[in-house]
Amino acid sequence: MTRTYPIRVRYAETDQMGIVHHSAYVVWLEEARTRLLEEAGLPYHELEAKGLFFPVTELFLRYHRPLRYGETASIEVRVSEVKSRRVAFAYRVLRPEGTLAAEGKTVHVPQDAGGRAVRLPPSIFDTLRRIAEA
Amino acid sequence: MTRTYPIRVRYAETDQMGIVHHSAYVVWLEEARTRLLEEAGLPYHELEAKGLFFPVTELFLRYHRPLRYGETASIEVRVSEVKSRRVAFAYRVLRPEGTLAAEGKTVHVPQDAGGRAVRLPPSIFDTLRRIAEA
Amino acid sequence: MTRTYPIRVRYAETDQMGIVHHSAYVVWLEEARTRLLEEAGLPYHELEAKGLFFPVTELFLRYHRPLRYGETASIEVRVSEVKSRRVAFAYRVLRPEGTLAAEGKTVHVPQDAGGRAVRLPPSIFDTLRRIAEA
Amino acid sequence: MTRTYPIRVRYAETDQMGIVHHSAYVVWLEEARTRLLEEAGLPYHELEAKGLFFPVTELFLRYHRPLRYGETASIEVRVSEVKSRRVAFAYRVLRPEGTLAAEGKTVHVPQDAGGRAVRLPPSIFDTLRRIAEA
Repeated sequence: MTRTYPIRVRYAETDQMGIVHHSAYVVWLEEARTRLLEEAGLPYHELEAKGLFFPVTELFLRYHRPLRYGETASIEVRVSEVKSRRVAFAYRVLRPEGTLAAEGKTVHVPQDAGGRAVRLPPSIFDTLRRIAEA
Repeated sequence: MTRTYPIRVRYAETDQMGIVHHSAYVVWLEEARTRLLEEAGLPYHELEAKGLFFPVTELFLRYHRPLRYGETASIEVRVSEVKSRRVAFAYRVLRPEGTLAAEGKTVHVPQDAGGRAVRLPPSIFDTLRRIAEA
Repeated sequence: MTRTYPIRVRYAETDQMGIVHHSAYVVWLEEARTRLLEEAGLPYHELEAKGLFFPVTELFLRYHRPLRYGETASIEVRVSEVKSRRVAFAYRVLRPEGTLAAEGKTVHVPQDAGGRAVRLPPSIFDTLRRIAEA
Repeated sequence: MTRTYPIRVRYAETDQMGIVHHSAYVVWLEEARTRLLEEAGLPYHELEAKGLFFPVTELFLRYHRPLRYGETASIEVRVSEVKSRRVAFAYRVLRPEGTLAAEGKTVHVPQDAGGRAVRLPPSIFDTLRRIAEA
């Protein structure tokens, strides 16, 4: 299951080069990832309320073409890996005309509220596997 | 007691106008305010650990001259008002050559961890009064 | 003409108090303001391309109730004042259930690309007056 | 030449997990990188003023241990690769007690003001090579 979400560039996300600052993409990936989880029936705020956290342990981004204020990007996101102690997401950020602005990956290690690594509960593991393969 | 703290402009804080985005000043005021509290013997992370929070309830900023990447601003901060249920801080943001970049004010209502308004504990009230008048 | 735009709270906009950090609202106001201008036929990126800039010269925000991750806020925005050298916007940020989260105001002084204050071109002045009164 | 710069955690950089949000590190790396360039006699704002830009084309971060508000991190940075059309920096973010909070890498492709890839001018190439090897 790959989903695509629109993200309007915010003025505050630009920098003096006149383009979107590279750190803004990190926040966009998070927004796309949590929307995908929500669509899959796993709203992230509910996971946290149950004591399950998915902190980012690895972040990779490759930037191809800039985005500018006045443009709306599309973020494609999918679950790319599901293990009991590791979940990864893959992303493509597209410009309005469809060319690739950036591509990325994040890795997450499930934790409890105390910051201890935990195994994914079976029902969540199954849901993530299902959306990874759909 | 007025204290002045240097803040180097971060590239990410600029926008496509080529100047520091107005939202960055909000974070700078917070940084200056918490440094002042720390110097006064009230590190804000320790207040929070004891269950006392100072959320911002009012924010005012007037912008006079822009700041640019490559410049270091100075933030002057002082406690401008202390009541048992309300604390205010006043700020001046100075450009490297000493002219006024911006001036601001924040108002805070002491709260407990549950978000309920509380009276300032006497020792903290006294310390804030003392640094307001010093 | 008052318009209302939804803003999904981003995880990155929360702070350790568990609520949206007060600086995030500043970016939301900007997002609402530029969407209003766009609806009025004055996309801000086109104004800038023609050499007309609306930097923020005053910012005021009063915070009433917190917003949390997992919630979608609504930002009401309208043009509250139009003079040839000064434009102001008024905002209300609403929680999902419709109560007031925050209210704000921004003042802008029209400038050219060199940062010099300029009078609003008549066509833009008229459009802003029209949407202020509609 | 490896340099280490202190970065005080800003309250706004925390998230509702109670730790520094992963996107803040991206801004910290940039701050460390531009301070290193400045120490090497290549202030980045002067490079840009001469028409030379180093946009980030790749970003990698691995997060090991969290940082919290009230802590000051140390960012170690060095130039890890210098080619005429590609420059890379390597980073280690240390917690106050010296353990590793995160490590990262950024890759940059020299560009002119129009966004076209260019070769590094010889004097800048030489300086970067020198600090990479020192």
